[in-house]
Amino acid sequence: VRSAHIIAVGSELLTPHKIDTNSLFLAARLEEVGIALSGKSVVGDEQVDLRIAIATALERSDLVITTGGLGPTSDDLTRETAADVLGLTLTEDAQILDTIRARFRSRGMTMPDANRKQAMVPRGATVLPNPCGTAPGLAIDTRDRLLVLLPGPPRELQPMFDAHVLPRLTRESAGQRVRRRVLKITGRSESMVEQSAFPVYSTLRGADPPIATTILATPGQIELHLSAVGSDIDAVDRALDSGVRALQDALGDAVFSVDGRSLEQVVGDLLRAQRKKIAAAESCTGGLLLGRLTDVPGSSAWVVGGTIAYANDIKISELGVGVDVIATHGAVSEPVAVQMAEGVRQRFRADIGVAITGVAGPGGGSAEKPLGTVVIATAAHRSQVRTFRFVGDRPMVRNQSVAAALDSVRRLLLE
Amino acid sequence: VRSAHIIAVGSELLTPHKIDTNSLFLAARLEEVGIALSGKSVVGDEQVDLRIAIATALERSDLVITTGGLGPTSDDLTRETAADVLGLTLTEDAQILDTIRARFRSRGMTMPDANRKQAMVPRGATVLPNPCGTAPGLAIDTRDRLLVLLPGPPRELQPMFDAHVLPRLTRESAGQRVRRRVLKITGRSESMVEQSAFPVYSTLRGADPPIATTILATPGQIELHLSAVGSDIDAVDRALDSGVRALQDALGDAVFSVDGRSLEQVVGDLLRAQRKKIAAAESCTGGLLLGRLTDVPGSSAWVVGGTIAYANDIKISELGVGVDVIATHGAVSEPVAVQMAEGVRQRFRADIGVAITGVAGPGGGSAEKPLGTVVIATAAHRSQVRTFRFVGDRPMVRNQSVAAALDSVRRLLLE
Repeated sequence: VRSAHIIAVGSELLTPHKIDTNSLFLAARLEEVGIALSGKSVVGDEQVDLRIAIATALERSDLVITTGGLGPTSDDLTRETAADVLGLTLTEDAQILDTIRARFRSRGMTMPDANRKQAMVPRGATVLPNPCGTAPGLAIDTRDRLLVLLPGPPRELQPMFDAHVLPRLTRESAGQRVRRRVLKITGRSESMVEQSAFPVYSTLRGADPPIATTILATPGQIELHLSAVGSDIDAVDRALDSGVRALQDALGDAVFSVDGRSLEQVVGDLLRAQRKKIAAAESCTGGLLLGRLTDVPGSSAWVVGGTIAYANDIKISELGVGVDVIATHGAVSEPVAVQMAEGVRQRFRADIGVAITGVAGPGGGSAEKPLGTVVIATAAHRSQVRTFRFVGDRPMVRNQSVAAALDSVRRLLLE
Repeated sequence: VRSAHIIAVGSELLTPHKIDTNSLFLAARLEEVGIALSGKSVVGDEQVDLRIAIATALERSDLVITTGGLGPTSDDLTRETAADVLGLTLTEDAQILDTIRARFRSRGMTMPDANRKQAMVPRGATVLPNPCGTAPGLAIDTRDRLLVLLPGPPRELQPMFDAHVLPRLTRESAGQRVRRRVLKITGRSESMVEQSAFPVYSTLRGADPPIATTILATPGQIELHLSAVGSDIDAVDRALDSGVRALQDALGDAVFSVDGRSLEQVVGDLLRAQRKKIAAAESCTGGLLLGRLTDVPGSSAWVVGGTIAYANDIKISELGVGVDVIATHGAVSEPVAVQMAEGVRQRFRADIGVAITGVAGPGGGSAEKPLGTVVIATAAHRSQVRTFRFVGDRPMVRNQSVAAALDSVRRLLLE
């Protein structure tokens, strides 16, 4: 396979509200096995558009992947259209039908008749099992071309591609690989990261093989992606690893992960290793911090729980914050944050307490404490507290607050 | 103009890290004047791919817009390729050349020779001035089709489209507009929604003007999008509104919003109207429910806070769940959920308490309570409780749990 074309199917992808992101995942996976994209298309639920798109793509690319349109509804026509373009008849596969029926039965439901079409298979096609949904994928070999039909939902598409398509492409690719490393950074702005990383870039470009870099910023987190191409994978990996080390030297402990782990995973691993448990008290983030921590599988080993103290009287009754302290300093203040962290640590019998109180907006700012003012405290054998001034709308302020709180705990655990 | 196709040009748009977003801006603008997208394509810097894309799009759509590839480098081939597809000769436009030269001069620079090609114009094309960059756009009328070439950078493309393309499309659309309605549904699967909605579809397609539908599913929520085109906006709106009513009749109170509001906003508005306050006790969702509730600006008026009781002893000490109740029924059980909801309601002095306890996985399931078993309780003047069996991985189970909890509160408030 030398070049690939991706066709995303679905009228919703032609509205101003939704964009095809499956192609980013697929482009990354294909890049790993040395296959470049020659193009991408998005078509709606008009069958003739899909027919033209598949036929045109098969003329230009030796691998064509469609995403979406394998569902049970009358709009879902990818299976039928692909068979039509290739002149293949469709027959019902009894085994697929059984699997779909069993899936419904396990939830105490009867399979609706509409789902029956998901068991139709074009002659000669390979069925790609879908453990995460009803629609199986299909791989159709046609002359010297490969047409792969994948379901639209990413959590169905991704494991299916990795388990049933990638191994075959890897086998057939023979040689060139793209390898990649990601440094994850928090507590610095994009331009601060660029400034620190800039002197290293010439070293990276001069490496053998040369290393390409990309910077990606989201609220509370910056990622530096390094990638290099070559057929000697060990040499590529060595070059990348020394590039990662050079950037770590330049960026210091702002780099929290070079192995793909999220900030909450890094914090969880540190807590587990030190046999410590954490509890959180949240005001303006209202549960987002605990939501991120408990997103990690197995987090019950190191998260005790916490209190969402959105109202002031709850800060007082449930966390033991002093009435006078709120009256004197205000709810968004360092003394209150410290008492919240200490209070939740004691109440929940945790080793570490962490607290967030702030002004996320859109209302509630003042000259002294404008929107984006957020105070974060940690309590352990001693307490630490810091006031941040974040920029952005309510979701951005909340996400930056959670990242800063996680980073405070990480730094405490690294001391 | 009835339908449009957008072609984004640029190899960087075929990498895993960059996505075409110009098409979202263009889709929104086109929708305003009643033009629907029939498709989108992304091509790299291979001229033959672009040639095929333009020719195919012109066969299917009466408006084709390209973005990018108008720069001065040898990779920038949109202008030449478009002229080639249409069989038009290119000639140098003296006035454009002067404008580009003046632009460089104003910055104390001499125009590089490479930029000369940006002054080339296909015969009969209309030049679209670019006050924000060197590359002018081009509008080419060909038979009954319109081909528009726009520069790639959004800050050049957007003002150019608004000043020089949109007015013409508005004039030619003769008042045609696309209007849209969205029904948001929870507590039903995609195929259940389809089954209930199916009998209404023929009414919708037979409406005047006809109504098109799209269904979008995410964990815990289904959206039905209705859209219709027409020049009499009141008639279009009336048709859509009666379509919405017909679907509401078919789907009942599973429809929680027809005005764009999220489930948490609907719950918040009900609480505000009834002057009630809510508190939540979360186990397996670990703060996600409160995180969603407090995502709503102004939620401090109706959210008191809550307790994240991830560990069993916290359910006992902080929520007053009976030791014996956990011992007898297990932490994931209806009696425990009810005590959690009642406990947080009392402790936080709220009008309504809501509680979630369940097995989100990946570990922790049993034969009796497999992964995905989630119990949700509400407590007010009396308590209600229900056990769910959700399908999916940890994030899916958690998201479905939060949606089900919000829906339980909504139903309680509607009683």
